[in-house]
Amino acid sequence: MASTEVNLDFALYAVEIAAAAQVASRALAAANGIKKNRWLTRSAELIRQSIPDILAANQADVAAAPKFGLNAAAIDRLKLSPARLNAAAVSLEQIAALPDPVGEIIDGGVQPGGLSVRRVRVPLGVVFFIYESRPNVTVDAAGICVKSGNAVILRGGKEAIHSNRALHGVLQKALEYVDLPPHAVQLIKTPDRSVVGHLLGMNDKISVTIPRGGKSLIERVVEEATMPVMKHYDGICHVYVDCAADIEMARQIVINAKCQRPGVCNAAECLLVHAAVAERFLPLVAQDLAARGVELRCCARSRRLVPGCRAATEQDFNTEFLDLILAIRVVDDLEQAIEHIETHSSHHTDAIITDDLAAANRFTRDVDSAAVMVNASTRFNDGGELGLGAEIGISTDKFHARGPCGLRELTSYKYIVQGNGHVRS
Amino acid sequence: MASTEVNLDFALYAVEIAAAAQVASRALAAANGIKKNRWLTRSAELIRQSIPDILAANQADVAAAPKFGLNAAAIDRLKLSPARLNAAAVSLEQIAALPDPVGEIIDGGVQPGGLSVRRVRVPLGVVFFIYESRPNVTVDAAGICVKSGNAVILRGGKEAIHSNRALHGVLQKALEYVDLPPHAVQLIKTPDRSVVGHLLGMNDKISVTIPRGGKSLIERVVEEATMPVMKHYDGICHVYVDCAADIEMARQIVINAKCQRPGVCNAAECLLVHAAVAERFLPLVAQDLAARGVELRCCARSRRLVPGCRAATEQDFNTEFLDLILAIRVVDDLEQAIEHIETHSSHHTDAIITDDLAAANRFTRDVDSAAVMVNASTRFNDGGELGLGAEIGISTDKFHARGPCGLRELTSYKYIVQGNGHVRS
Repeated sequence: MASTEVNLDFALYAVEIAAAAQVASRALAAANGIKKNRWLTRSAELIRQSIPDILAANQADVAAAPKFGLNAAAIDRLKLSPARLNAAAVSLEQIAALPDPVGEIIDGGVQPGGLSVRRVRVPLGVVFFIYESRPNVTVDAAGICVKSGNAVILRGGKEAIHSNRALHGVLQKALEYVDLPPHAVQLIKTPDRSVVGHLLGMNDKISVTIPRGGKSLIERVVEEATMPVMKHYDGICHVYVDCAADIEMARQIVINAKCQRPGVCNAAECLLVHAAVAERFLPLVAQDLAARGVELRCCARSRRLVPGCRAATEQDFNTEFLDLILAIRVVDDLEQAIEHIETHSSHHTDAIITDDLAAANRFTRDVDSAAVMVNASTRFNDGGELGLGAEIGISTDKFHARGPCGLRELTSYKYIVQGNGHVRS
Repeated sequence: MASTEVNLDFALYAVEIAAAAQVASRALAAANGIKKNRWLTRSAELIRQSIPDILAANQADVAAAPKFGLNAAAIDRLKLSPARLNAAAVSLEQIAALPDPVGEIIDGGVQPGGLSVRRVRVPLGVVFFIYESRPNVTVDAAGICVKSGNAVILRGGKEAIHSNRALHGVLQKALEYVDLPPHAVQLIKTPDRSVVGHLLGMNDKISVTIPRGGKSLIERVVEEATMPVMKHYDGICHVYVDCAADIEMARQIVINAKCQRPGVCNAAECLLVHAAVAERFLPLVAQDLAARGVELRCCARSRRLVPGCRAATEQDFNTEFLDLILAIRVVDDLEQAIEHIETHSSHHTDAIITDDLAAANRFTRDVDSAAVMVNASTRFNDGGELGLGAEIGISTDKFHARGPCGLRELTSYKYIVQGNGHVRS
């Protein structure tokens, strides 16, 4: 492979990949669930059998990592282990256990004139998935795409290219084994960026592009893509503690939302507190958070209740810290909390803590976010936690799919209409 | 209004419109169904009361029509009448009678840990609707958008500007009457094209753009838009007459699909005939069609069965004639028919005529079109006929919405998650 790369005509290579994916997508759309599940379980088997080979490939990536300027945390994410590979295999087996979305009758009935109408779920076609670092994602994404009947073109980070090639080799062997088209799962084998550019121009062959990674990657893809993009922008998530909140519950939820895994998109970045409970609540939660090493950045009113904390700037209320930092603001009432969220939230996940039914209803109606939580941590906005079984990302778009994107979100539908010689008059 | 137009700063005007729409969209999203329905029925009433004024405005457009180079058919579409205005009013009343999509619980349940999860339908937000000619569309589009909880920015054709202003004035009076925000329905009051360009750049304020008109309009919008576009490209629709077709049924359906209204997107443009029935079927249907003035453009094999017909070029199989012209091809079998459709169809509507269940199943599975018809005319791909009640267009996209787009297709959803102090471990 390495020898051909140098001379690849990248534009041609991109056309070949996309055309092959399109052909494969038609076979996949018609493949029955048993075959797709056999591929998933066979892939899991082969991953377990190939652990030494995959780890050797991964070792090459880890060795080259400093060259790419990866820090320790990034190298840790890049590193595979027998346990991590087993987790990837288990994840494929879990996807196999999910119901097949393709062919599902979404709704239907008989029209007054006797026409039978069904709306039936079908795959989108070809998914172009662009991601960074973690090689496990290669396996997950391929599993979700194939199970939902889509061909997938994978573009992993250059720092994981050996691991991804090894994993992709295993997935392809399994495709051959169950007689699914080998181009159902393709991996872009060159780190050259121009191939991505060519592919992003092919809206006649690629149905959707899913970038998963940093904001700059996503912005570049949105800029260049001619097909729809499923985006997973940042998560500036809020917890609002209402005047009718159970204070103990609020403490636990704020701690969980901020500290349980601060580096992820559904972690809380901002705490809003109703003025009527601020005096009682803020000193307690500030203590809780300080004990866990969280830096607080407070508005003028909250600063009076949290001695020694740093003053929040306007920018702090628009920042996804992804770290043990929390912005805090005291609000006059529910309306001001909603207004703050509508102005500053990234519409990913926002929570209210309250025992007041009217406040809960008002908040869930007027906060326009992918997930709106009542008396629960923002950390629950996740495909696994919300019952999707597997997810390829969390969409902050409102178009097509919103929130966790699993199998269903990678599908479209068609109308199947059956008559008995029906003509229109 | 006319005096200010000359000096409008178009960029500023666009920002004002979009910002006002966004504010209005929040109020609309929270408006209950009774209020929205009162607006619809009040608008219908006011249209009926304002017939003389609206017709006078329309008269100004009709008088100016030759200046815009409109032909007789286009002028006819532009012309309003008491009957057409009454039809517009009835259409609003019909939209009022449809169920409110906003707040519908799409699905939901309780997760193993006790979290209650609902997926609830919400409006998209702000719809930018760009359309041509027919002023009735102004009323329909506003009705569908407001009923689905969306604010709408209307951009009609310059040739209908007086009619559209009059109709918009009525719709706004009704908004005031029921106390919905006046910017829920806005009409761009200048024919200047640059306002459209500015609005197409505002993906932070406009949720979706829907262009409805000729291909060049749609392509321009797709090119410029930074937000999602719901497209309604051409309809190159096929009827395939299988070897197991009821020949009489096939004749009636082909006639209907081609002739009942040849100028619309769901009219058939190409007839495929299985070789085994071509000799029996083609001479009959050719006679039927000739009697209705249809010009046939035939492949080599079909020409032998249709004396005197014109030879089809490759281009004919890729053309939306929108006229009494039909391309005809004889195919060897079902597979070749499907292959032809997958190559040439615009994936709008394709039909099979057959009594063979396996052929019907194969066709509906493998033909990847928005609507796939069995023993029914392609003309049934229409929001009204398929039970949507009202439609703003027919999408040839697979992303978000496919086929007829009604109220539901102008919505998104949010996850509402309720716990009892749930934190993630």
